[in-house]
Amino acid sequence: MREFLLHSRTGYTGANFKSLMMGGRLDIVYQCVLMALFKSAAHRQDVVFHAILNGPPNPPMHLEISGAELRDVRIDERSWEKVLKNVLSGKSHPGIAVDKTPFQKLIKEKSAAGYKILVLSNEGNEINGEKLDGDMLFVLGDHVGLPKNDESFALRYGTKVSLGREKYLAASCIDIVNYHLDQI
Amino acid sequence: MREFLLHSRTGYTGANFKSLMMGGRLDIVYQCVLMALFKSAAHRQDVVFHAILNGPPNPPMHLEISGAELRDVRIDERSWEKVLKNVLSGKSHPGIAVDKTPFQKLIKEKSAAGYKILVLSNEGNEINGEKLDGDMLFVLGDHVGLPKNDESFALRYGTKVSLGREKYLAASCIDIVNYHLDQI
Repeated sequence: MREFLLHSRTGYTGANFKSLMMGGRLDIVYQCVLMALFKSAAHRQDVVFHAILNGPPNPPMHLEISGAELRDVRIDERSWEKVLKNVLSGKSHPGIAVDKTPFQKLIKEKSAAGYKILVLSNEGNEINGEKLDGDMLFVLGDHVGLPKNDESFALRYGTKVSLGREKYLAASCIDIVNYHLDQI
Repeated sequence: MREFLLHSRTGYTGANFKSLMMGGRLDIVYQCVLMALFKSAAHRQDVVFHAILNGPPNPPMHLEISGAELRDVRIDERSWEKVLKNVLSGKSHPGIAVDKTPFQKLIKEKSAAGYKILVLSNEGNEINGEKLDGDMLFVLGDHVGLPKNDESFALRYGTKVSLGREKYLAASCIDIVNYHLDQI
């Protein structure tokens, strides 16, 4: 399985926002969903996307979206604004689960389940040199980056990998990782 | 210079739409802009993004966005909905130009100006094997693909390149090309 985990420092944990951007930068979560789960006219069946939202009113919240089970979605931000408002106010949506798992607990659980934990960072080893197989969880931060203590925690279970010297949008990082894995 | 040209079959050429998706899939144009021009906390100074919009009421329309000159933009779709509505109704925005150049004329002009024309297609040569240097224009279609006659025309001036066997979103294709060029 190929999984991504976005740590969102400010993403709202309720549905009271005017736009995804004004919802603590939930627009970044949308962009990551787009790049993690969508190909041309298809969902990626082998990808699960996670976001841990740490904004008000009820942090943390763990959003889990499974490409294999996702239904009734389009790819534009406005559609996802509705979808996220629904799930953040407790409504159900096929393929999307919401619970209270915090960031560090999710890392620990995935590691215990045999997942390789790979933290995206410019300071890591080049992704081309990594052995990419089995179950993998790629971990990344939002526009501000991972909080130091969470990064240190994740690195107890895994290693840093780099996509080169450029600093990419979180969504680009996910897209590039998907591309690398598609080449294998 | 690194340039991208998206052929949008249905993208509206006026500002009378409720959302970018309902504007003839202008959401795809937005996604391509995002991936073409934005890095983390920066614009790509060396990238120009073009879209030829062929939807109502006034086709074709050529949208040209220069990373070096772009100002006053955020990265979410709603912000770009406002920006695109403004420029499509004749208002100015720094870094964005609108004119009536059709797809084939733009290809011809770029080729005459010394640009290498590279048409993204699953049937092309692997991008890893291509010599990527100098001025380049990467050409791609929207969710339906390039119209046959426009593809044939572009191939009179250039060649097909492939990003592998997967069929990616247009925005992903642009992102992956940017990533490849960043490695050089």
